Amino acid sequence: MARKMHAIDSGSQDLSIIRDADMVILATPVNIIIKEAKEISKIIKPGCIICDVGSTKNEIVSKLTKILPGFVGTHPIAGSEKRGMINADSSIFKNSLCILTPVKNTDNTALNKVKNFWLKLGARIIIMDPRQHDKILSYVSHLPHAIAFSLINSIPAGHFRFTANSLRDTTRIAASDTGLWLDIFLSNRNNILKSIKVFEHNLSLLKKSLTNKDRKSLRRILSKAKAQRIKLH
Amino acid sequence: MARKMHAIDSGSQDLSIIRDADMVILATPVNIIIKEAKEISKIIKPGCIICDVGSTKNEIVSKLTKILPGFVGTHPIAGSEKRGMINADSSIFKNSLCILTPVKNTDNTALNKVKNFWLKLGARIIIMDPRQHDKILSYVSHLPHAIAFSLINSIPAGHFRFTANSLRDTTRIAASDTGLWLDIFLSNRNNILKSIKVFEHNLSLLKKSLTNKDRKSLRRILSKAKAQRIKLH
Repeated sequence: MARKMHAIDSGSQDLSIIRDADMVILATPVNIIIKEAKEISKIIKPGCIICDVGSTKNEIVSKLTKILPGFVGTHPIAGSEKRGMINADSSIFKNSLCILTPVKNTDNTALNKVKNFWLKLGARIIIMDPRQHDKILSYVSHLPHAIAFSLINSIPAGHFRFTANSLRDTTRIAASDTGLWLDIFLSNRNNILKSIKVFEHNLSLLKKSLTNKDRKSLRRILSKAKAQRIKLH
Repeated sequence: MARKMHAIDSGSQDLSIIRDADMVILATPVNIIIKEAKEISKIIKPGCIICDVGSTKNEIVSKLTKILPGFVGTHPIAGSEKRGMINADSSIFKNSLCILTPVKNTDNTALNKVKNFWLKLGARIIIMDPRQHDKILSYVSHLPHAIAFSLINSIPAGHFRFTANSLRDTTRIAASDTGLWLDIFLSNRNNILKSIKVFEHNLSLLKKSLTNKDRKSLRRILSKAKAQRIKLH
């Protein structure tokens, strides 16, 4: 069967091109996905499968499942701080993790088709509740971004020439797309605020041991961090 | 002229091997450098040049300059979270930055020899006051480490399997050597506490905009971060 693929960027107003599509992948920022869902529902043919690649799932899944019967929430955990066709990488999903977040109203045929699609791209599949997804991602992705943005904004610009790899690596993701992360943050704000609280607690323990010159507790913090990081392959 | 090189690890008690050395490079954690300086001063021959590679300079330089007349404080800004001969990299200093921190009692001949030594390894040299060095490094290196340690300690262990590159990169340095960083942190604690305060202020701005769903101020924070990070090559 011949397959046609089209890429429509988020600035494009003409969605009529998806009229005959068997599958539509929504790859715009979260807010635009939600905004365009109604428009899309009027254009697509019956049985059209729709998935997204948004980094937060609860808001998208609860809104889109009502509007688009063939919708399956998906989050391929792969990517970089770069955007656009020029940074495309055909092997980006190979051995990556793709989280699928079906809910009770999700169509089973659609779920299986979407699952097979990501499997064929080389991804490993995990099925998860969208709320659980958003809690976990607030720790493993959104919190590191919140920290990287705050960290780079704390460095006096004159100090940049003295930078080695530590600051470079910890802030690489601070160059991520502003619009994309604005939507992720606002769409998952409660979970992110909670994960920031946990981080602040850990930072306060480190500060306390520094303030008190408490070598023993500082050693405990650093050893724990090393042991934790080693677990993370 | 034939040159002999010896590596003595910090666990070794037999320092007599440095008796005939023309140059000694102290590459142990800060605290051990300070502890062993007196012992070293009794062994070395007159005119012996000594430098270190410690990540903080004010404490080391003020203490060692008094004890070792041929001492020059140096900080080659290069390295990784890995340790030991097995992770040695012969090109590690090529195009790296090496900060030299002479003070008014530093011997000029020693300074020039140390300078030439690092230049020959491919490093670019910057001369700086040791206190200024410690202030700058607290931002570009020690703060990112403090944050990486606190961040990895905030992630529930069960979430590690969902990790993509954002958490991986932001916490790579959390696997750094505990003893080494214990000494760096305690030796530069006042500057580090100040840089943490600046970071906390920036994080609180982000939190506030999340709490208030303030899209405009959140966009400002994320845009500034992106612009800052792009400056950092």
